[in-house]
Amino acid sequence: MNIDMIRAAAHRIQGHARVTPMLTSPFLDEIAGRRVLVKAECLQHTGSFKFRGGWSAVSAMEEATRKRGVIAFSSGNHAQGVAAAATAHGAPSVIIMPTNAPKLKIDNTRALGAEVVLYDRTGGESREEVGDKIANERGLTLIRPYDEPQVIAGQGTVGLEIATQAAELGVTSGDVIACCGGGGLTAGIALALEAEAPNMRARPAEPEGFDDTARSLATGSIQRNATETGSICDAIITPQPGDLTFPILQRLVGPGFVVSEDEVLQAMSLAFKRLKIVAEPGGACALAAALFHGDKIEGDAVVAVCTGGNVDASVFADALKRFP
Amino acid sequence: MNIDMIRAAAHRIQGHARVTPMLTSPFLDEIAGRRVLVKAECLQHTGSFKFRGGWSAVSAMEEATRKRGVIAFSSGNHAQGVAAAATAHGAPSVIIMPTNAPKLKIDNTRALGAEVVLYDRTGGESREEVGDKIANERGLTLIRPYDEPQVIAGQGTVGLEIATQAAELGVTSGDVIACCGGGGLTAGIALALEAEAPNMRARPAEPEGFDDTARSLATGSIQRNATETGSICDAIITPQPGDLTFPILQRLVGPGFVVSEDEVLQAMSLAFKRLKIVAEPGGACALAAALFHGDKIEGDAVVAVCTGGNVDASVFADALKRFP
Repeated sequence: MNIDMIRAAAHRIQGHARVTPMLTSPFLDEIAGRRVLVKAECLQHTGSFKFRGGWSAVSAMEEATRKRGVIAFSSGNHAQGVAAAATAHGAPSVIIMPTNAPKLKIDNTRALGAEVVLYDRTGGESREEVGDKIANERGLTLIRPYDEPQVIAGQGTVGLEIATQAAELGVTSGDVIACCGGGGLTAGIALALEAEAPNMRARPAEPEGFDDTARSLATGSIQRNATETGSICDAIITPQPGDLTFPILQRLVGPGFVVSEDEVLQAMSLAFKRLKIVAEPGGACALAAALFHGDKIEGDAVVAVCTGGNVDASVFADALKRFP
Repeated sequence: MNIDMIRAAAHRIQGHARVTPMLTSPFLDEIAGRRVLVKAECLQHTGSFKFRGGWSAVSAMEEATRKRGVIAFSSGNHAQGVAAAATAHGAPSVIIMPTNAPKLKIDNTRALGAEVVLYDRTGGESREEVGDKIANERGLTLIRPYDEPQVIAGQGTVGLEIATQAAELGVTSGDVIACCGGGGLTAGIALALEAEAPNMRARPAEPEGFDDTARSLATGSIQRNATETGSICDAIITPQPGDLTFPILQRLVGPGFVVSEDEVLQAMSLAFKRLKIVAEPGGACALAAALFHGDKIEGDAVVAVCTGGNVDASVFADALKRFP
């Protein structure tokens, strides 16, 4: 895993993924007490940065392998990213989703061209068993959501864009906060910044109760979450940092932020009001950290990555109502 | 009023206004029955394209005149655009607003550096009297919202960007729909397209009951709206097309679209769900036309300008609830 892989991914992605804008608002600067630059990755195709990793992985495959197809396990953003990237390459994709996944996400994944295979989480079936059987029968290649070099490389292209866009706004040092699940995005950004903006440092943001990465960084060894359910930040809840991502995080990133559910909802409302973008709860953790945890940040500017916008209308409306 | 003024405005604006992204979604394409490209001008500074016109006008002034300051009449987006542009140039700005304007808009305009002068709409005071008195006393220059060449030139920079961005996506012909009030944006885009994308054509979109531009184009002479109140699309309600803008519209643009309130709210909800952007009602008219009036559009692609995102949380939440 190195910067050359990220640069190669950037080359493959060019013209396919969007160069998402870096947004700012004097009103957010005032809340944070410093300049806040928001990388609006919710405006990416399929509504999250996951499209980059999906495209990077699918485009890196050999043609004959790709033609047989890809498979992924996901109930959310990774599913849509892989499905869209595979379809655009003319490759079949199978996404294994739980039967109780939101209908909209199942419908979207199908509409993006994937074959969705449902498994019953409560029925004793393991999704790995379901997936392995199909993958072996059809010769499909598994695309993991974060512990996969070409996926990390794709997510790292966010970091390359941040280095360029922040410099255009006069910012060449400071923290770059990323909403963090398994660490693919955070690790990719960290590697990109190491090469392109050595005075900038990636830092992960996670919701309270699901701060496996922050604790792993603090203790120096991989820590697990006690549970994987019960967070509104569903998109970034993973059991623990990845085996590939954690060593990169350990070497390069600063301490993790842990934000509350109320801070996340308030950040969503402020992103609506001040930036005119839609952030999902898991995608608003970094902005919440930038706005409400300024005491743990140094310097006169901070970058926050708004990682996704795939949120149900009712959840979004509730956030606006609670924090008008 | 000509293309050279727009190009000069683009030069002055560069690095100050954002080059807003052109967004797409396969789900919107399916609804429209053709490719839909959305120019997300709600992501502009101050939340609407009005920042461009404000910047263009303020930056075109002679230094001595600018130093004395500028004045504008507006309860909304033009106020914020002019205030932000003036402050960035170190020039004082006075915005005349009605006492019953939304508190948030008054607060925002003040926070952007303007002196807000309130006048009582019901108390017999004419805003022109209030404004003229202050302007004469202090030597302020009036910046009109649309019947002002340098404002039209600034709004026209949206058209230059559309020509470039659409071509990058392979679109060089078809309709470019703009939400239309006094016609400054539509006229500016029309002039830009005439020069840079001669096979593309601007068309205005307005809400039902406030279709002065559509009727003026159809009859060949300036028509007035019966009333100026009672529309959710408050940002684009004007008495009639401008004296400067109408001749440009008449020469260059196609027939106007007239959209219903329900179509506007549904377009706002779809922009939320599929593009992850916040559109205000007046800013969603063009997208509503592109999605729901396809029978009046030719060709396999259409561009819709989402002109602004300054909408109250309660109005936005209602749109999501009504059209989930």
